[in-house]
Amino acid sequence: MNNFTFYSPTFFVFGKNTENEAGKYVKRFGGSKVLIHYGKGSVVRSSLLDRVKKSLNNEGVEYVELGGVMPNPRSGLVYEGIELCRQEKVDFILALGGGSAIDSAKAIAAGVKYNGDFWDFFEGKPIEEALPVGTVLTIAAAGSEGSGDTVITKEEGMLKRGAGSDVLRPVFSILNPELTQTLPAYQTACGATDIMAHVFERYFTNTKEVEITDRLCEAVLLTMIKEVPRAIAEPDNYDARANIMWAGMVAHNNLLGVGRDQDWSSHAIEHELSALYDVAHGAGLAVVFPAWMTYVMKHDINRFAQIAVRVWGCEMNFANPEETAKEGIKRFKEFLRSIGMPVTFKELGAREEDIPLMVEKLGLGENGTLGSFVPLKSKDVEQIYRLAL
Amino acid sequence: MNNFTFYSPTFFVFGKNTENEAGKYVKRFGGSKVLIHYGKGSVVRSSLLDRVKKSLNNEGVEYVELGGVMPNPRSGLVYEGIELCRQEKVDFILALGGGSAIDSAKAIAAGVKYNGDFWDFFEGKPIEEALPVGTVLTIAAAGSEGSGDTVITKEEGMLKRGAGSDVLRPVFSILNPELTQTLPAYQTACGATDIMAHVFERYFTNTKEVEITDRLCEAVLLTMIKEVPRAIAEPDNYDARANIMWAGMVAHNNLLGVGRDQDWSSHAIEHELSALYDVAHGAGLAVVFPAWMTYVMKHDINRFAQIAVRVWGCEMNFANPEETAKEGIKRFKEFLRSIGMPVTFKELGAREEDIPLMVEKLGLGENGTLGSFVPLKSKDVEQIYRLAL
Repeated sequence: MNNFTFYSPTFFVFGKNTENEAGKYVKRFGGSKVLIHYGKGSVVRSSLLDRVKKSLNNEGVEYVELGGVMPNPRSGLVYEGIELCRQEKVDFILALGGGSAIDSAKAIAAGVKYNGDFWDFFEGKPIEEALPVGTVLTIAAAGSEGSGDTVITKEEGMLKRGAGSDVLRPVFSILNPELTQTLPAYQTACGATDIMAHVFERYFTNTKEVEITDRLCEAVLLTMIKEVPRAIAEPDNYDARANIMWAGMVAHNNLLGVGRDQDWSSHAIEHELSALYDVAHGAGLAVVFPAWMTYVMKHDINRFAQIAVRVWGCEMNFANPEETAKEGIKRFKEFLRSIGMPVTFKELGAREEDIPLMVEKLGLGENGTLGSFVPLKSKDVEQIYRLAL
Repeated sequence: MNNFTFYSPTFFVFGKNTENEAGKYVKRFGGSKVLIHYGKGSVVRSSLLDRVKKSLNNEGVEYVELGGVMPNPRSGLVYEGIELCRQEKVDFILALGGGSAIDSAKAIAAGVKYNGDFWDFFEGKPIEEALPVGTVLTIAAAGSEGSGDTVITKEEGMLKRGAGSDVLRPVFSILNPELTQTLPAYQTACGATDIMAHVFERYFTNTKEVEITDRLCEAVLLTMIKEVPRAIAEPDNYDARANIMWAGMVAHNNLLGVGRDQDWSSHAIEHELSALYDVAHGAGLAVVFPAWMTYVMKHDINRFAQIAVRVWGCEMNFANPEETAKEGIKRFKEFLRSIGMPVTFKELGAREEDIPLMVEKLGLGENGTLGSFVPLKSKDVEQIYRLAL
């Protein structure tokens, strides 16, 4: 196990009707003038926005609004949000929505406190200060409600880049599973795939002797395998939604990743898909991950056999562990299909002829590499895309 | 799943040599004059105290010292600590040791900020304010390094009582598994039993639909079953120690207990044993828990069969699930014996004739009850003690 630090100071408020406490928590965490930041009309249509405003009014907290966050959130709205916060002397940002609204809120929170161009943070400048961010989560997926990470797409060149800092961890996050009961099956499945992907990025590691985090990773995956099909079959099943929602937070606040090298190449490989086709991140991951697994499996057959046995319920083939490893990947792919996810380029609507462009945009050049489990060169990434055709 | 809040704001620093950063973290979290609080001479003999002092000196942080915390820490030293902190204008308490030193530090931290008798908190008064506490952990056991709980014994009548508040959660905790490599096998096993008991108290619940926390509980237990025998057989095995140490934190910061009713009757039943005989808490739990399980098993055979299959590796007896449930308890008892734990009154050095006294001291009277999985009356507790003879 590697040395590590772990810090997850977010105050989580979980359960039915909890969005009505948003005002109370904004006040408790020092907000007096809030930017309410959200995406499309669903937050308005579901009356979530009204309920949150009412709870702010009840606490005497002032607010301004900025809607319009898009999936794969854009830098343009971040600049707008920074400007608005400065004009209105906002001291707290409250994101309503999923990962996109929260990531956009985090970028604004960091930008407000910075004199330069906020994009600097997405080119590697450390984030040392930010306005406090609170969230009311409406989809179990990105895990941004418990993480210090944000991913923003710059319109020029559709560059999708991430940044992170402990100061971006939300001060509170409100998770009401009821708010996810109205999600269509496809979005539910995309979110679930994203959650599972966050675990896989941590699970496939070269660090030895990490039983506790292996087991915690497996716990989240086993929960998803049980609960996601239930939530797809019965969208109103509160308990299935609740288990998935909490699993989504646990999957990405980094409790599962401490003390071990993490990979994250599949996320980068996927980012090129969602940037080019504007498809859902989860759907892109469903296409990339099985291909990546197939490509790198031989690097550590035992680890792939372990997940096959412990998570996918395969019987260990002691005479031929590679068969067990393969069977695990096969079951994962079947699981993805069963919840309605695409697992090929074709099903996703991606094109073979764009592969060279995506590989080029990843920017590895001839000798750069991606990921740590198996460091991938451009030619490897190209083969992974081809395995997903 | 029940509604819940979860808050674990402790900054964890984990790994080799991390105790040398104590001074840095005290300073980062606002300490300028520290009470170093510890137990027996082992902290001195191992030179841990010297290394911590050096790191405080390096940061220009002043300190005073108070050693002498005993296992099952006493109120007398807490009063002394409160007095010392006030005289010396201490603004930060740094505990070096295990649960006893940390619990004592938390009680002092709350007491310093309170005008009345600190024992009020152990009779139910809410704790609203406390000095910040940091810890350098030397044994994986109590989980106090990540919890807001403290247990103190009042000398008058040997009353062992708990108190808790989010303000008592340590601001930072330093966990270096190397510091646990010198622990004798018996203490290692006692600590491990305590960790597993923290999981059981949460696992046995009447709350339905808690798959994610069930699975996380099982993850910690499976880790312990693998790693504890290794740490007993090879005390210097850093990786076994590391997995156990992090599992011990995860077992008790309440991530595993959110959204579900918890039991905690076995802890209360054990407290009477350790208060009366001054035995290690973990050893007492090894005696109480199998007896409690045997006594309550029929309340929910399926849950006991689940843990038997998922954790103890039993094959499900579909014709007779009760046999599976029993087999799980049997394997747990065998595991405890294999790591050198007592599982009977006799092995612990407890006496049958003291049972009525212990039941009486629990204070349930004729109609009071203990625990939530199966609310236990005095007569039930008596039978549980007798099952452990």
